Amino acid sequence: MTSSTQDPWLLTPGPLTTSMATKEAMLHDWGSRDATFIATNQRVRDNLLKIAEAEGSHVCVPVQGSGTFAVEATIATLLPRGGKALVLINGAYGKRMVKIIEYLGRACATLETPEDTPPSLEDLDDTLSNDPHITHVLTVHCETTSGILNPIKEIADIVERHQRHLIIDAMSAFGAIALSAKEVRFDALMASSNKCLEGVPGMGFSIIRKSILEKCKGNSHSLSLDLYDQWVVLEETKQWRFTPPIHVIVAFDKAMEQFFAQGGVEGRYKRYSNNRKVLVDGLRKMGFEMLLPDHLQAPIIVTVKMPADPSFDFQAFYDRLKDRGYIIYPGKLTVAPSFRIGCIGALDENHMNGALDVIRETVAEMGIKTGAPVAA
Amino acid sequence: MTSSTQDPWLLTPGPLTTSMATKEAMLHDWGSRDATFIATNQRVRDNLLKIAEAEGSHVCVPVQGSGTFAVEATIATLLPRGGKALVLINGAYGKRMVKIIEYLGRACATLETPEDTPPSLEDLDDTLSNDPHITHVLTVHCETTSGILNPIKEIADIVERHQRHLIIDAMSAFGAIALSAKEVRFDALMASSNKCLEGVPGMGFSIIRKSILEKCKGNSHSLSLDLYDQWVVLEETKQWRFTPPIHVIVAFDKAMEQFFAQGGVEGRYKRYSNNRKVLVDGLRKMGFEMLLPDHLQAPIIVTVKMPADPSFDFQAFYDRLKDRGYIIYPGKLTVAPSFRIGCIGALDENHMNGALDVIRETVAEMGIKTGAPVAA
Repeated sequence: MTSSTQDPWLLTPGPLTTSMATKEAMLHDWGSRDATFIATNQRVRDNLLKIAEAEGSHVCVPVQGSGTFAVEATIATLLPRGGKALVLINGAYGKRMVKIIEYLGRACATLETPEDTPPSLEDLDDTLSNDPHITHVLTVHCETTSGILNPIKEIADIVERHQRHLIIDAMSAFGAIALSAKEVRFDALMASSNKCLEGVPGMGFSIIRKSILEKCKGNSHSLSLDLYDQWVVLEETKQWRFTPPIHVIVAFDKAMEQFFAQGGVEGRYKRYSNNRKVLVDGLRKMGFEMLLPDHLQAPIIVTVKMPADPSFDFQAFYDRLKDRGYIIYPGKLTVAPSFRIGCIGALDENHMNGALDVIRETVAEMGIKTGAPVAA
Repeated sequence: MTSSTQDPWLLTPGPLTTSMATKEAMLHDWGSRDATFIATNQRVRDNLLKIAEAEGSHVCVPVQGSGTFAVEATIATLLPRGGKALVLINGAYGKRMVKIIEYLGRACATLETPEDTPPSLEDLDDTLSNDPHITHVLTVHCETTSGILNPIKEIADIVERHQRHLIIDAMSAFGAIALSAKEVRFDALMASSNKCLEGVPGMGFSIIRKSILEKCKGNSHSLSLDLYDQWVVLEETKQWRFTPPIHVIVAFDKAMEQFFAQGGVEGRYKRYSNNRKVLVDGLRKMGFEMLLPDHLQAPIIVTVKMPADPSFDFQAFYDRLKDRGYIIYPGKLTVAPSFRIGCIGALDENHMNGALDVIRETVAEMGIKTGAPVAA
């Protein structure tokens, strides 16, 4: 199957395949200070709050750039200079938060588990009991390094019991895996336009508890990344402080319109979960082995262990799949060689079956007997 | 005249009206780590260096976000913690650089002139003679606050004679007003996708002297805005460190293809200069008065003094022009009430004459006898 634009399907963790309606929304020009765009911008902010069930308690502050910009901006704005962060790490995005805090020059502790292992709730509890200096806990909802789903509700409950602040990098899960501010207590949650809400890349956003943000004046190290200042100006003028990525925002608005029409978080969770099931079942039939057991595997991106068969060469495999219209993703694991296949974007089981067909053909062509990895 | 997309024409300093070919380039999806996008990204970086005639001496480092992100990232990366900046101010963008340096907590002096007055070259010379602590001079090529063109060559010569570093905010002039690294000595020059190169907003870039950037490791206050780190990773992997605004970049590539086909900097300067001439001549015939004398007025955006006629209400004027298909821009002057009309974007003298026609109609309709301002 081929896309209407003749582009390969993106089985990647975002940027991902978007619908034609989303892309076509960008075929216009708007003044950034004009009422037409301002209304769109307000709708985007309101809808993001709605998805998080955070109306009333939180505000939505967008920021130019990639998801990392939103993560850095949120940490810098919320973590005061005298604060101390505890970062839960089981992949590259946890590590990236530590790197951000190092740039900021603020105090930081870590709790690390292997990439295929959720954080230890017991260790979290103990650490918070033993270190009263920790003011903020930072965690990742779905670590795209492996595709693991971290136990966000349990983490939030422990952080709340210890009366600390919780900041969630929900980048790759937001909109597809339910996370309601009514059930999970958080001070901030960050995500971006080009993940499960199926927009194009260029903006991130943070959903921040209003009563907290009100006290964050002067925390940020950076003018561009100061979400307090961005929020104050947005409330006053309805305009971004600096030129917004207009086409990205308008496409995001269009993508969210489709998101709600397709059943919101529940609809998206169902479609992506089915994508994952079809994909994983099909891969297993070819002997491939997944890194994660099913109960830890989020319906976002699947990490496949590198086959042991000497005929398997990842770059050749990637190129042949691309030639046949499917782009997969390299691995990022430190523990074992692997590659990744995404389940997200404007794709359904037909695309997954299409991908499995070309994987099957490619495996046969390359003379690979089985996808099985080296035995552990 | 109406646009093919039924959008109003944007007589604004960017985001601006882009060509349909530029917008249509966004009707695709690309993997950010795939060879297809990587080739486009490299071409964009190479072409930006070419426009600045800076191949060999400088490198082009792109960054996500608006122009301000590129300005902050450049200052943070180039100005060491022990350095001292001298900022030449005659408008909001000079002031913004001072604000950025305050966030950075680095030393800063200023030389300010009124918004309709270029920096004093004599004062610059004296200040550099008298303050040996100043390491970097920061200036704005065309200040969109008023539309004034600052004497960049003369400034650069003085800075070079004093052996200091020069950083130029060339945001609103780059690509339309010649600025060659062969003639004007600078260490860095920043601009963005959505100004005279007529792309859509979402990325900025900095053209930085390679021998300087090589020594900038560890200067930046921010991971996201660290242009040294961004450059090192780009050179090694050809990929951005964090998700790039792909659609924006591909549209930018397409916009630059048209830029070169239309005669490059010279072609753009001619078209914009003619736009400005047609616009200013027409406005003067209606009694409007410009803030700047012609020799200081860049062909980018024209500041018009607010008419004294009591029938003139800016918001009503703006709304009526918008209803007729033209969006103008509010004023940003602190010295006098004003509004602005841009000459840039995918527009030519037909659009300027179209705008003049609707201004004429609107002025008549509102019962405004003359556009003349209060006598100074």
